[in-house]
Formats: sequence, C-alpha cells, structure tokens
Amino acid sequence: MNVSVVYDGKYPMRGYNERGNETLFEPAPDHHGSGKIATPMEIFLQSAAACSMVDVIDILTKKRKQITDLKIFVESERATEHPKVFTKAKFRYELTSPDAELADLERSVELSMEKYCSVSGTLKKSGCEVKYESVVKRG
Amino acid sequence: MNVSVVYDGKYPMRGYNERGNETLFEPAPDHHGSGKIATPMEIFLQSAAACSMVDVIDILTKKRKQITDLKIFVESERATEHPKVFTKAKFRYELTSPDAELADLERSVELSMEKYCSVSGTLKKSGCEVKYESVVKRG
Repeated sequence: MNVSVVYDGKYPMRGYNERGNETLFEPAPDHHGSGKIATPMEIFLQSAAACSMVDVIDILTKKRKQITDLKIFVESERATEHPKVFTKAKFRYELTSPDAELADLERSVELSMEKYCSVSGTLKKSGCEVKYESVVKRG
Repeated sequence: MNVSVVYDGKYPMRGYNERGNETLFEPAPDHHGSGKIATPMEIFLQSAAACSMVDVIDILTKKRKQITDLKIFVESERATEHPKVFTKAKFRYELTSPDAELADLERSVELSMEKYCSVSGTLKKSGCEVKYESVVKRG
C-alpha cells in the first residue's frame, strides 16, 4: 500500500491514497492549525475505530442483523515522554438495531479486536492497553 | 484525547474529534466502499506521514529555512496473517526550498522519526520496520 501527504506552504496537509482520494490533516489550533480540521493523532485513533467498525458491520451483516446506526467512542491516554504514543485506549460500541442482541455485538467486537482489526492490532502490538465495551439499543 | 466514529446505516463512516471536525472513512471499493474515500489503513499510514510532516515543518521553520512545498511518499508492506499489520514502511521526504540544504532536511527528519513523531513511533513500537530518505530540490 502506497500513500502520500503534501504540504504546499500552508495548512492543511493533504493525504492521498493510490486512487487519489483526499484526506485533510492539520496541527492543533495551538500549533498553527485553523481549528477546522483534525490532527494526525486524532485521525489515527479514528482510523482504529473505523477499521474495527467495518469488521463489526461485516460480521453483523453476515449474522443477518440490521444496523440502524453504530457509534464507537474512544477515550485514550498518551505517554508524557516523546514520542507520546497512546498508552490506553477504551472503545465503546453503541449499536442501535431492531433485532441484534447484545451477545451478537459482543461477539462481533471480540472477533474484530482480537483477530481482524489491523489498526487496533497495531496499537496493541505497540504496547497500548486496549479495552472495549458494547451497548445495544432497540431502534 | 477522545474521538468518535459514526455509521448511520450506509458508508462513509464519519470520524469526529472533540471540536467536531469531521474526517471520512470507507472500506475499499471491493468491500462495499464507493471508491471516493480512503480506507482506515490508508488514512492511518497517511496520519504517520502527516504527524512527521508537522515536526519537519516546525524544525525547518525554527532553522529559518523556507518551504516551497514538502511531500512525503510512503511505501508499505503488510503481514499476510490477521490482523495484517504494517511490517515495513519507507518514508521518502521531498522538500522544495530556495535555501534549505539536504543536511537541514535530514536532521529534521531524523529528529521527527527518532524522537517526536507519535504515529510513526507507534508503528516502530508495533514491530514495523521504518526507513526514511530525504531529497531536496531548489525552488
């Protein structure tokens, strides 16, 4: 997989994949960012949730469960020393479904986080403590 | 740091930071994506380059060097076994500047990759082999 990131003398930075799809990145507002675009570390953490979300959607769909919506909230802590990597990350999965049971979501999340998810797998291999919990609402 | 990712029954997934800034994610086109938005793993790898880019811009600016543009190209390899993490990543930094020397860029990149960059620091801690090279063009 090849990607690139381009800076033309002003923010935002523009990331590209091999198809040319664009993703924007900026430093934090207290570090020359405009405040309108997320930072690389925020987007990295989002990419872990998004990566796992695709797994969970796939698994629930294979179980023929309906997904009204699915939200993942991630709380994290970072090391105080450079390079200030994530040391803890807690993923909360909130599924709204007319027919999925909590056990369906829990099994899907477990498969993602213990086997399939490449980004959270990287976080775990880096030494970050990864935890997760699941909630199902009818709707 | 807290982030969230939301799926409302169709792609793209929408990622949010605490300020509400939005970043979009999709699966690959051969996996229900539209082909218009990058995947979580592509964006993860871009976040590593963007994170390092901010460091390099900061350090070159402190050295009072001008940046016409800066591009980072990343080539990567992934494990064949789940969770298919990145096993190799090579970052190529291409700076266009009227006054920066190659040594200025090389020192900036080294400081980022060996000390400051949180995302590539995570990649390295996960066991990924990270390499980098620098090129400076006048302009």
